[in-house]
Amino acid sequence: MNSRRDFLQKVSLGIGVTALAGLPASAAAPSAPVVRAEKQLRVAIMGLGGYANIVAEAMQKCTMATLVGVVSGTPSKVDTWKKKYNIPDKNTYNYETVSEIKNNPDIDIVYVTTPNSLHHKHVLQIAATGKHVICEKPVADNAKQTREMIAACEKAGVKFYIGYRLHFEPHTRELIRMRESGELGKIMHVNNYMGFKSGDPTQWRLKKALAGGGAMMDVGVYALNGARYCTGEEPIWVTAQETKTDPIKFKEVDETITFQLGFPSGVIANCGTTYNFNNFERLYVIGEKGFVELSPAFGYGPIKGRTNAGPMNMPAHIPHQTLQMDGLADIILNNKPDPHITGHEGLKDMIVVDAVYESIRKGGQKIFINKA
Amino acid sequence: MNSRRDFLQKVSLGIGVTALAGLPASAAAPSAPVVRAEKQLRVAIMGLGGYANIVAEAMQKCTMATLVGVVSGTPSKVDTWKKKYNIPDKNTYNYETVSEIKNNPDIDIVYVTTPNSLHHKHVLQIAATGKHVICEKPVADNAKQTREMIAACEKAGVKFYIGYRLHFEPHTRELIRMRESGELGKIMHVNNYMGFKSGDPTQWRLKKALAGGGAMMDVGVYALNGARYCTGEEPIWVTAQETKTDPIKFKEVDETITFQLGFPSGVIANCGTTYNFNNFERLYVIGEKGFVELSPAFGYGPIKGRTNAGPMNMPAHIPHQTLQMDGLADIILNNKPDPHITGHEGLKDMIVVDAVYESIRKGGQKIFINKA
Repeated sequence: MNSRRDFLQKVSLGIGVTALAGLPASAAAPSAPVVRAEKQLRVAIMGLGGYANIVAEAMQKCTMATLVGVVSGTPSKVDTWKKKYNIPDKNTYNYETVSEIKNNPDIDIVYVTTPNSLHHKHVLQIAATGKHVICEKPVADNAKQTREMIAACEKAGVKFYIGYRLHFEPHTRELIRMRESGELGKIMHVNNYMGFKSGDPTQWRLKKALAGGGAMMDVGVYALNGARYCTGEEPIWVTAQETKTDPIKFKEVDETITFQLGFPSGVIANCGTTYNFNNFERLYVIGEKGFVELSPAFGYGPIKGRTNAGPMNMPAHIPHQTLQMDGLADIILNNKPDPHITGHEGLKDMIVVDAVYESIRKGGQKIFINKA
Repeated sequence: MNSRRDFLQKVSLGIGVTALAGLPASAAAPSAPVVRAEKQLRVAIMGLGGYANIVAEAMQKCTMATLVGVVSGTPSKVDTWKKKYNIPDKNTYNYETVSEIKNNPDIDIVYVTTPNSLHHKHVLQIAATGKHVICEKPVADNAKQTREMIAACEKAGVKFYIGYRLHFEPHTRELIRMRESGELGKIMHVNNYMGFKSGDPTQWRLKKALAGGGAMMDVGVYALNGARYCTGEEPIWVTAQETKTDPIKFKEVDETITFQLGFPSGVIANCGTTYNFNNFERLYVIGEKGFVELSPAFGYGPIKGRTNAGPMNMPAHIPHQTLQMDGLADIILNNKPDPHITGHEGLKDMIVVDAVYESIRKGGQKIFINKA
């Protein structure tokens, strides 16, 4: 086993990443030749937008996951991808033919990267083919849709994962390790936020029919999912507040939301999200014995971190999607435990998202969730 | 005029402190000899607790303000202070004799540093003597008391200031200058928090009768006052959430509160305060063109800051209370405009504090304030 695979397997196994800091530099060098493992997870991507490109590029460095197929409604995109990634004709589909994937023995899993509000429909379609599914976050428009997606995958006997790439990211895994090991002591508070200034006013993100919602759905989920991995708990109440400084641009979807999650231990996670300003990306968890700050914390990286002991020394940056897809391959091919990336985790986030919108409708009122 | 006085006067005049960065090192050197101005503001301190000591020590470096008297119920403390600060017998009072200050021509102003819940009573007592008053924050238990204090001082024709020392602190003044000059662009968001782990379980801060409230009253006010100087606006709504992870220690007063202020421009300030953990002190204001982060932001210093352009280069640290008392002297003796430190500013904060507690009682409900 080469050291890079060793690294990836350790990450996917949840082995403390501090222990990896001593790896030879070549292990993380972007220019290192890719040595592919014998067993490969064979992946098709559905929806060839901007994020699909990022995943496909990152997968070129995977050792255990291979891009083998595409699903797209745009023939010109299919042509481009076929050439760029050496994809055979027989592994290309459009939205009318996608059900035929069930007859294709060369595809193991489909990564759904279509606009957020289409995830529900598309995951149901893929589940019906008998292929495993990975769905980009946010998993769906709401918890109800998510429950239907989970039920459909369970009924079809396929695995259902969410594109929670940060659960394979070294800084994030290190903070989880520090929390689980007790190094941070009892967790006392969380302050997470994630947002950016949205550009193109015609993009799908600003249309409710395609996006399901605004900043909260799309990037607020990072702060929320982060609050859950900062605490290791599920929230029992949610409050939220909304503002729109540009009600014309953000007519259909939410622009800026602040929200608070109350956890059983008494921790409050105080969070925020926006589509209308930059410099808004940070995770901060405070324990009785120390803290972890990641800033930036949630983007495609490099992530930067510091703790009460000083700067975090993590291995050199590897694209998160490389780590994610290799980690996922390891989980599926070798039957490893997963680091909180299943559809059930997506559901836990969507229950909170539903409560955020409900609290806003009710003037900030506390919404109780996850009742015992 | 020596350069140190020049510096202090610039600060009290609100002249941009970036312009001060080029001052000779001696200007800020703690060992520089104090050259006292001819006109002095003659100050008595009422309530000789821990904070009074800090103020008295800092005043030893003042050029325009002199500690000349004390009010205390503890004779042994009076003895110690008399010796330490060369205070004449005739300028010492206890709580029974304090009204006699009115006959003392050698005291201009009394700085009330008694436990928070006694501020109301003591400011009324000092106003009745015809002396100016400076009252440590939080000004009182609530807005009603504060209005009474303002009315009493107006009726007596005395000036009424709050111990908002940060309004004389260079980093804070620089961020206000950046906001006012438009360098930050339109302000989009604020994320401030201030708290600490309270030690001694027998201290007055944990007793409602002396403290009025808990973390929110005492240090949450920094985050709140900061939100007002980050935006230059008054909030129009408030939401808040409370948690007690140690309900025994914090039986009488609030432990940890998160609160949100909505401003007319649409900015939300998302804030927090606590008495039960450390590493919780930061101001962060985001504009369309840049940001300012102060961390630490509110303590006695040194304050550290960075902006989108890099680290803030401010003059070497001078105790805030030195800057504050010299600045206050300059304002009073030379009839200068004050930088938002009057009783009316305290009232604006207390209106928010009242709304924070009301929102908590109402389950996070939005409380509308400052209605047009």
